[in-house]
Amino acid sequence: MNAERYLTARARLIEHALRRYVPPQRKHPRKLSEAMRYSLFSGGKRIRPILLLAAAEAVGGERAAAMPFACAVEMIHTYSLIHDDLPAMDDDVLRRGRPTNHLVFGDGIAILAGDALLTDAFHIMAAELAHRTRGGRAAAALKEIAEAAGSAGMVGGQAADLEAEGAEPNLPVVEYIHVRKTGALLVACIRAGAILGSARPNALRQLTRFGEFFGLAFQVADDILDAEAGVAVTGKTPGRDRARRKLTFPAVLGLPAAKERARGLLANALAALDPLKAPAEPLRAIARYVVARGCDGRPA
Amino acid sequence: MNAERYLTARARLIEHALRRYVPPQRKHPRKLSEAMRYSLFSGGKRIRPILLLAAAEAVGGERAAAMPFACAVEMIHTYSLIHDDLPAMDDDVLRRGRPTNHLVFGDGIAILAGDALLTDAFHIMAAELAHRTRGGRAAAALKEIAEAAGSAGMVGGQAADLEAEGAEPNLPVVEYIHVRKTGALLVACIRAGAILGSARPNALRQLTRFGEFFGLAFQVADDILDAEAGVAVTGKTPGRDRARRKLTFPAVLGLPAAKERARGLLANALAALDPLKAPAEPLRAIARYVVARGCDGRPA
Repeated sequence: MNAERYLTARARLIEHALRRYVPPQRKHPRKLSEAMRYSLFSGGKRIRPILLLAAAEAVGGERAAAMPFACAVEMIHTYSLIHDDLPAMDDDVLRRGRPTNHLVFGDGIAILAGDALLTDAFHIMAAELAHRTRGGRAAAALKEIAEAAGSAGMVGGQAADLEAEGAEPNLPVVEYIHVRKTGALLVACIRAGAILGSARPNALRQLTRFGEFFGLAFQVADDILDAEAGVAVTGKTPGRDRARRKLTFPAVLGLPAAKERARGLLANALAALDPLKAPAEPLRAIARYVVARGCDGRPA
Repeated sequence: MNAERYLTARARLIEHALRRYVPPQRKHPRKLSEAMRYSLFSGGKRIRPILLLAAAEAVGGERAAAMPFACAVEMIHTYSLIHDDLPAMDDDVLRRGRPTNHLVFGDGIAILAGDALLTDAFHIMAAELAHRTRGGRAAAALKEIAEAAGSAGMVGGQAADLEAEGAEPNLPVVEYIHVRKTGALLVACIRAGAILGSARPNALRQLTRFGEFFGLAFQVADDILDAEAGVAVTGKTPGRDRARRKLTFPAVLGLPAAKERARGLLANALAALDPLKAPAEPLRAIARYVVARGCDGRPA
């Protein structure tokens, strides 16, 4: 399958759903709505919601039932980018090729836009639960996402990252940070999708294993991109990680070994999907695409 | 009934439950956990969770089943205080008589502590839902809380407040801001409690009406306290609202008329509870206590 064509088509579907969930507010407080939509509709690749839908379909579930959760994880991801870019955190000026949220709207509104995206994401999922007569699976999916996004997951990873800035390169610490900061939500997307798709325990286990390897591969590839590629590819200020003395895989392992590692993680991720056969083909394509983008500096 | 004794006993119960839900983390990222607990355990009055439990009991519901939601709303309230106090927002240095979170932990960790409290609150509620066999009411309660906390509620109110700073005193705008910034979550506490307690439609309507009047009375009383009382009573920098040219009820109406208004709102709130008879007595006591604290400068 053509990964790029698949991802583009899926991103368009998600874009469409997100525009329904987060419509512009013409009235008070208009600035908040503008700030939320500025970051939410800024050309993100929508990898997380695409993974969630693909995991649901890999176990025979329906895409439509998973869509509210797919939109919610993209909103949660977007909130985390807005907050991470703040001067008090990574202090970044460029995101997806545009000025970061706080540069356009001010720090106060940027913080609130993040808060609103996070909270509204939970509202969307809760509304979906409340109108289902049997919401057990949806509740379990919501729980996965909330846990992965909170203090034991993404926020914990970002806090550890802040604390570790300028520390000596150290592989266990890098892995600790990335497993939480990026990996946890990626795994939650895949698990939530699988749960919503009524995965059997075996399939859920295999998809979780895929998610764990993929999550780490994703981050290694992203670190490599930050180290190697220019702003045209990443949309971010190039070399920021090095400038901030962030603990990254290339910083700890060196570039060639980091690429080797990304490819090894990809192989493990793909192996975990073997029992799922053809319906898991989109997940395989996404994983190959992401790692190739980092390691070969090309988009597919 | 003795309101103060009731509130103290209830606050202790909630404190105990919160300590189980948000235990200290001795490991990485320890600073995040310390920051979360610094603000969560700083002597808050726990009015919101107390209201939630009291509303559940007013319709014959069980306290224990409502407790996870009560803890969650206190965590959401605490996150909102941490973010509101940030330099990019109200820039306050004192909260509950202690230095604000960002002064102790830095802006970055303070933002993350707020993010984590908010997200973990949803995790607690989702976990409660996921382990119930019939979670319909719990899902509806979660939806109320998420909606009230998000862009259409609390975050929207804070954004409108930021935008309105320094504007001409204007009663509709003050009410717009307060209905969202404080009122929405208070009403959601009462409605969520009632829903968890299996309120019939009539009782839910009466409690909602109570919540709307009480929410506004609460804010008027709080504004009066900020204008009149010293730091010993409020635990906040005195006169901050005036200094920031915040739109408040005393600023718009003058102090005597603001007090009059608080008492009128209290009377309406109490009238809404009439049909609920004796089980609603704690709600009445809370409402009287809150308004007396603002209007008479005494705690009961």
